[in-house]
Amino acid sequence: MIIIMGNGATDAQIGAVVTKIEGFGLTANVSRGTERTVIGAIGDERKLSPDMFDPMDGVEYSLHIVKQYKIVSRDSHRRDTVIDVGGVPIGGNRIQIIGGPCSVETQQQMDLSAQHVAAAGCRLMRGGAFKPRTSPYTFQGNGVDGLDMFRKAADKHGLRIVTELMDARMLEVFLKYDVDVIQIGTRSMQNFELLKEVGRIDKPVILKRGMAATVSEWLMAAEYIAAGGNHNIIFCERGIRTFETAYRNVLDVTCVPVLKKETHLPVIIDPSHAGGKAWMVPALARAAIAAGADGLLVEMHPSPCDAWCDADQALNPEEFAALVESLRGIAGIIGRSL
Amino acid sequence: MIIIMGNGATDAQIGAVVTKIEGFGLTANVSRGTERTVIGAIGDERKLSPDMFDPMDGVEYSLHIVKQYKIVSRDSHRRDTVIDVGGVPIGGNRIQIIGGPCSVETQQQMDLSAQHVAAAGCRLMRGGAFKPRTSPYTFQGNGVDGLDMFRKAADKHGLRIVTELMDARMLEVFLKYDVDVIQIGTRSMQNFELLKEVGRIDKPVILKRGMAATVSEWLMAAEYIAAGGNHNIIFCERGIRTFETAYRNVLDVTCVPVLKKETHLPVIIDPSHAGGKAWMVPALARAAIAAGADGLLVEMHPSPCDAWCDADQALNPEEFAALVESLRGIAGIIGRSL
Amino acid sequence: MIIIMGNGATDAQIGAVVTKIEGFGLTANVSRGTERTVIGAIGDERKLSPDMFDPMDGVEYSLHIVKQYKIVSRDSHRRDTVIDVGGVPIGGNRIQIIGGPCSVETQQQMDLSAQHVAAAGCRLMRGGAFKPRTSPYTFQGNGVDGLDMFRKAADKHGLRIVTELMDARMLEVFLKYDVDVIQIGTRSMQNFELLKEVGRIDKPVILKRGMAATVSEWLMAAEYIAAGGNHNIIFCERGIRTFETAYRNVLDVTCVPVLKKETHLPVIIDPSHAGGKAWMVPALARAAIAAGADGLLVEMHPSPCDAWCDADQALNPEEFAALVESLRGIAGIIGRSL
Amino acid sequence: MIIIMGNGATDAQIGAVVTKIEGFGLTANVSRGTERTVIGAIGDERKLSPDMFDPMDGVEYSLHIVKQYKIVSRDSHRRDTVIDVGGVPIGGNRIQIIGGPCSVETQQQMDLSAQHVAAAGCRLMRGGAFKPRTSPYTFQGNGVDGLDMFRKAADKHGLRIVTELMDARMLEVFLKYDVDVIQIGTRSMQNFELLKEVGRIDKPVILKRGMAATVSEWLMAAEYIAAGGNHNIIFCERGIRTFETAYRNVLDVTCVPVLKKETHLPVIIDPSHAGGKAWMVPALARAAIAAGADGLLVEMHPSPCDAWCDADQALNPEEFAALVESLRGIAGIIGRSL
Repeated sequence: MIIIMGNGATDAQIGAVVTKIEGFGLTANVSRGTERTVIGAIGDERKLSPDMFDPMDGVEYSLHIVKQYKIVSRDSHRRDTVIDVGGVPIGGNRIQIIGGPCSVETQQQMDLSAQHVAAAGCRLMRGGAFKPRTSPYTFQGNGVDGLDMFRKAADKHGLRIVTELMDARMLEVFLKYDVDVIQIGTRSMQNFELLKEVGRIDKPVILKRGMAATVSEWLMAAEYIAAGGNHNIIFCERGIRTFETAYRNVLDVTCVPVLKKETHLPVIIDPSHAGGKAWMVPALARAAIAAGADGLLVEMHPSPCDAWCDADQALNPEEFAALVESLRGIAGIIGRSL
Repeated sequence: MIIIMGNGATDAQIGAVVTKIEGFGLTANVSRGTERTVIGAIGDERKLSPDMFDPMDGVEYSLHIVKQYKIVSRDSHRRDTVIDVGGVPIGGNRIQIIGGPCSVETQQQMDLSAQHVAAAGCRLMRGGAFKPRTSPYTFQGNGVDGLDMFRKAADKHGLRIVTELMDARMLEVFLKYDVDVIQIGTRSMQNFELLKEVGRIDKPVILKRGMAATVSEWLMAAEYIAAGGNHNIIFCERGIRTFETAYRNVLDVTCVPVLKKETHLPVIIDPSHAGGKAWMVPALARAAIAAGADGLLVEMHPSPCDAWCDADQALNPEEFAALVESLRGIAGIIGRSL
Repeated sequence: MIIIMGNGATDAQIGAVVTKIEGFGLTANVSRGTERTVIGAIGDERKLSPDMFDPMDGVEYSLHIVKQYKIVSRDSHRRDTVIDVGGVPIGGNRIQIIGGPCSVETQQQMDLSAQHVAAAGCRLMRGGAFKPRTSPYTFQGNGVDGLDMFRKAADKHGLRIVTELMDARMLEVFLKYDVDVIQIGTRSMQNFELLKEVGRIDKPVILKRGMAATVSEWLMAAEYIAAGGNHNIIFCERGIRTFETAYRNVLDVTCVPVLKKETHLPVIIDPSHAGGKAWMVPALARAAIAAGADGLLVEMHPSPCDAWCDADQALNPEEFAALVESLRGIAGIIGRSL
Repeated sequence: MIIIMGNGATDAQIGAVVTKIEGFGLTANVSRGTERTVIGAIGDERKLSPDMFDPMDGVEYSLHIVKQYKIVSRDSHRRDTVIDVGGVPIGGNRIQIIGGPCSVETQQQMDLSAQHVAAAGCRLMRGGAFKPRTSPYTFQGNGVDGLDMFRKAADKHGLRIVTELMDARMLEVFLKYDVDVIQIGTRSMQNFELLKEVGRIDKPVILKRGMAATVSEWLMAAEYIAAGGNHNIIFCERGIRTFETAYRNVLDVTCVPVLKKETHLPVIIDPSHAGGKAWMVPALARAAIAAGADGLLVEMHPSPCDAWCDADQALNPEEFAALVESLRGIAGIIGRSL
């Protein structure tokens, strides 16, 4: 923690800050410069926060110098973590493409989807049984029936399933259907009670980035899960909100190298929600893999025009298979496999 | 719904769009321009959505022409709604200032706070028993004990209480302590399951704007509550996330006249979270009232430097009382009372 | 300047940083904490910049602790600066409303506008002779002829004139027509060559904030003007660019108290460009004055529907006069006059 | 142009809109729906703009249906444009990497840089002689002397040169030194007078995207250049401004497929300014090429730690050569060469 005193801070004001630091069991280093006095707190600064010092007389501002996340930080674990999803690794050298429809519609649609996902060489499948929709008047998902259809379709093809949990009260049902990876959606990234719940189990969790969440807030959200004991966390970037209106979101590829530096956990990308249009997906998917992502969440529907939601962003099975093939080439160039 | 066809769209492509519109029971108006053909869907366009048309061949883009919210729209209810909080009106000519600390700390702190809130002439009090905190390692609120302290302190001074609900499983406890106004926080604005729960009861709800939520998404979130039957909704602007780093958030006063045009429901402002520093609060509070807000949520603490959270944004009791006084003057200028 | 060393930085790496600091004639304070070593540079840190240290081995990051602006900073001049525009003060207790049309169209339109501006009790008039337009195919302003019409119309009513300079090559013409206040527009805020030119003269300059400029960048842009010798600078907030699409820009009232703290120079607000619609202007104008702005730039047109540009954001003369009147009331409440 | 009338618009109000449309020589299509009446203007809608209709009684809002750019639009020129820079093509199948230092420092530094750029197999070199700097107190570039050093160094290795023009008054000097590609910087994207000047010559122009410019504004800025007769325009994305503070800008790779759809002109990317740190550059550069960019602007310095500006974002010659090599592999996978 560093406390920068304002121009003209008095000795008494400096002394009060030092006393406060010492009161928490840390020691203070006072450095008097030509324009400002700077006070450093030496010891475990996680006990302190800027709002303890900022309202004190004579303080200009204060800031943490150490990141507030611990378990998810690469400082605490130098090597890349590889998460085991029923025998399928996420993280590490192998890249995983998770394909499937936006929402679970019918058993037939899910069977067909699973068949195409497996045929393209993928090992994990996505699909929403509970859907967070902007309007209360649109399709909200098939719920538990959807989980059942999804599980059956995936099992026929030996696929692991990924689906979103929106409400802590449904966690038991998710465990009953043995959902392999629980997705925490964009709108739930800071639903701290939900994070605590998935922190208590040991199922892998995909934590999507909030629409306007900073990388730091995202890491702290993961820390909520990790603090409960569940370290099987996968970050998923899905486009951020900016001033641009020509596309739904801006895919933030810069977060990939930055997260790789800050955390030991895997990072995947959802190019479908980022752009919002199927024709943008191949370019974004290729960029994601080239930037170093450990995998992708890609929407594919057996018949996109008939999809019950987000019909304009799903690839058809042929487009999906062709995309996976071109990603295999890029993976090879950067020394990875798919 | 308007569908704009691409340059060079064929008659067959136009025909397919018309057929799709008619399939939903609407009629189509085809207007062939010099550069583009435009197709209008006539009838209840809420049955349609852009993603039904955008993936069709020949379509450039499509858009709704009518807003997707109904119950909260001023189209459905022309006059301003006044919400009754145990005899205290929110909305209408009278402006309400809701004061109190960020979090419930001790019974003594709450008693003192309630005394100062009442002394300043306010009728409602704020305070957090359950706190959404960015870090899992910081104070998470006193929980149910906090509700108890809050209720007791407020009752001594005849104040109505406002506090945040973060988890649907706690709703029963909120009702037991007869929380007068349930606050849905910024991070929960699109927690749709929570919105549905507070839609089923009839307690007034303050719906805070998400950190990067558009006005349209915010109105749709309110529509989730309203669709369940609870129309006692109060919008609360609390600063939005932008590129600016000199202050925590940017208070968006423009949303006040815009919401007043779009909805019949009351709009209040939280100047404390917007700026993030106590010294900014008076200027922002005055701007909010001058812009037409129906009330404010203002942080006040008996001893700001000792507050357990957000210590740098609380006013002390004297500053709070002085602020309320100056707001009374501005209210008078624009023909309102406080 | 503070340099934070990474976890595990070696003595040699720390030594290299110290040597570099000393090479610039400053001294180094090394503080070894439990997790990080922090090095403070003591002396005139403006000789240093983070990019000198960030690429060095072992450095995690570095930051300035003193703001980079000097002349415009309140540290260098404690009292509010009042700028004299031909006898009309900007800054200080009196609030100035600068009214007039978006663009200079005809002599008659300008004569009528000047008459209404003066009738409302204003002393300064705005109007664009050179217009920055998004499209090359729209009206680009009347140029020098426009300046001539503007000067004549204003002189009949004793008004000072404010108009935008887009190109350094036109500065001579602006001086010939004795433009009283030169406006540097949003898109030119970081046109550094233009800033240097207006820094060489002594005419008052209104420096509009860039569409996505931080307060810090804005102050540095002002410092460009001030460094040339011209200290007659007026900041003008005009709405910033965010994710919100329900209105053109978000008026940032928070910048008013923040600028008042950081600089001694006056701050005004343009509510017309901020919201983009005439019906939003009164609410935003009142908020601006309540927040502490020293004045406003307001678009008024004798016949808004016939305006050649931005027809939807101009007030008509009656609306303008009524607005000025209500602002007078708010000014009184906060102890100012208008 | 489509004009959406408000709920309850009268026949007289609808008639007034029709009359206004007809007054511009277009015809009107009136479509009366169940909730709204929609009026379409048929003919050349570029004569119309929303602000002509929005202030009319009964109008809710209006919008263009055709994009406002013409020459740069793919509608006007279906095939990709390949720009000839003294025999080196930009656009088309071949990808160009433009390397070099942030600023021109000394003849020796430029000679060394040119040697390394050529050795890596590149044909174009970047370097700034005139530097737009946030602070007036930092190095502003070597000016005309810098152009001279740059030209000499590049000529020894047969490289084309790319450098930024900040001021129209320097254009003559740029032509004298035969600058091969004139760069219009981020802060000048909407310096319309400068755009008009480079529109009058036939030198290729790199148009960098403004820090918070929409794709639509960027295309309109290019249209300013094209409208003057110069169609040799190259778009350059360099990161946009968002709420994220963990890195300087967010590289927007989504704009690549979107621009490729909207315009026939080449699109390149500057990964160095986007991330702001050398260690991020390889990941971003690979993402850019994988997303379909036609080239890159990459900062390389013979000795990054000694660079006079942006020292933390330049690659050293070895890193640069290795990056070019890995990009060659990705180019091959997507069927292009480098």
